[in-house]
Amino acid sequence: MRTSLDCIPCLIRQALSAARMVTDDSALHASILRKVLHWTARMDLGQPPPVMAQRIHRYLHTIHGENDLYRRTKAHHNRMALKLLPELQEKVTTASDPLETAVRLAIAGNVIDMGVNSEVTENELRQAVNGVLTESFTGELDAFRKALSRAQNILYLADNAGEIVFDRLLIQEMGPERVTLAVRGFPILNDATMADARAAGLHEMVRIIDNGSDAPGTILEQCSEDFNRLFHRVDLIIAKGQGNFETLGDVQHTIFFLFKVKCPVIAHHSGRPLGTHVLLRSDTVCAPGGPEEAPRIPP
Amino acid sequence: MRTSLDCIPCLIRQALSAARMVTDDSALHASILRKVLHWTARMDLGQPPPVMAQRIHRYLHTIHGENDLYRRTKAHHNRMALKLLPELQEKVTTASDPLETAVRLAIAGNVIDMGVNSEVTENELRQAVNGVLTESFTGELDAFRKALSRAQNILYLADNAGEIVFDRLLIQEMGPERVTLAVRGFPILNDATMADARAAGLHEMVRIIDNGSDAPGTILEQCSEDFNRLFHRVDLIIAKGQGNFETLGDVQHTIFFLFKVKCPVIAHHSGRPLGTHVLLRSDTVCAPGGPEEAPRIPP
Repeated sequence: MRTSLDCIPCLIRQALSAARMVTDDSALHASILRKVLHWTARMDLGQPPPVMAQRIHRYLHTIHGENDLYRRTKAHHNRMALKLLPELQEKVTTASDPLETAVRLAIAGNVIDMGVNSEVTENELRQAVNGVLTESFTGELDAFRKALSRAQNILYLADNAGEIVFDRLLIQEMGPERVTLAVRGFPILNDATMADARAAGLHEMVRIIDNGSDAPGTILEQCSEDFNRLFHRVDLIIAKGQGNFETLGDVQHTIFFLFKVKCPVIAHHSGRPLGTHVLLRSDTVCAPGGPEEAPRIPP
Repeated sequence: MRTSLDCIPCLIRQALSAARMVTDDSALHASILRKVLHWTARMDLGQPPPVMAQRIHRYLHTIHGENDLYRRTKAHHNRMALKLLPELQEKVTTASDPLETAVRLAIAGNVIDMGVNSEVTENELRQAVNGVLTESFTGELDAFRKALSRAQNILYLADNAGEIVFDRLLIQEMGPERVTLAVRGFPILNDATMADARAAGLHEMVRIIDNGSDAPGTILEQCSEDFNRLFHRVDLIIAKGQGNFETLGDVQHTIFFLFKVKCPVIAHHSGRPLGTHVLLRSDTVCAPGGPEEAPRIPP
């Protein structure tokens, strides 16, 4: 999807928040923000929002001198989710519909997102789990079941650290032998990398590749040849999180997007209300032409 | 106060919202936003936030060709508040402490603010009234009573249309003969001008002047000589709304600020929690040196 004008204040707010993680130097905060304002003033709105987020974070990495600003946060989220894992597994095992429960829980894990939300607590994570299990689910589960029953090869695009622990449940239900899990090629925000996949124990159950890119989404032109080859060869793609939806929503393929709707722009593009837990098939996404077709989002 | 870095995403969001009021042309929305991003990239953070808001709205006026974008909204807010006026007057008359009730209601009226909130409904206005009358009030009411008992001349700086109807109650309680009411010199956002003061019937009860400026606050260097002379001569100033607090918080004078805390930056500068209804004496404002002393506001 294109970048909506409504994304710009949000990108700037995120940049300020990240700048404050990088340094305590207030003059540097201002200088970083001024640079980001210059970039957004000239930005190509035809690109999806993760492109600007990527540019901002690449720049912050040069300032900080280390390229994994969220390392400790991610480790914390992985530990928090691993602590919950046994009871989550129990919920799936004892469910009348284990696949649906695993899908719901995989979406619940998407509450962990440093781009949109601030730090998530264990309590909020538990609330998200209970919420997603009890709410009415309007996702395209029947179509998902059909696609699963036919698929020989599945590519599972992970989103965030912590959340990736929740993905274990769905991968287990689908049958890990036909799944390849893809993580980001380099650290960006709290997105899951190979290190997070290993921390979550996924290397013991499924084949894992990295996509070769440091975008907080999946920008195919930036991903490795190996990743692209696999992407176009598999029967079915499961894409977690808003960032993957923003970057792959217009791509022709059998993709199921699993995410929580966290902002009004995505609510509009997905056609689902803010806060909804979504299982959305790519060919049913009503992708509007551009940002200006978006409704007026109240300030 | 200086502009906090946290104000910048908010100013940009407000600019986008106002641009959409000015025109339906999506290309123009983008062009306006790019201009505002350029300005904020170079802005003087030593100035209070209303200076940038003023610049944005002056520019929007040149695009729209009419300088009162919020005219209809303001007329609507005035009518809505006038409809409530009889019952508000009744509340003051029957109160055990009419002055306190009038102060509380004057602050309740500050819920009407197009800068921070979107359109206010009659229901929300009633809720604000009930909320402010029942909540515990931590304002500096004793100091205010003392200052009132001594003051011979009072300058009352109005804030928004609609809200100005609520100001009638407090002006009445203080004794209108010693009060001069000041409104903005030119239309800006939904701030009250002379036309709004007259629509609210204030011209029949109190002397009214305009401040000669189109800032959404009180920037003394931009105000008329007459206004400045009066400002420095009076014993007591009552300043309504965040805009007046942002621009006069550092000025040496006996000023009581009455407003609702609508954003985290003002919560920090005023030392009062978000959502609080505030009656704050100028010499108790803990004005931090600059934006970077502000706490980290969660994204």
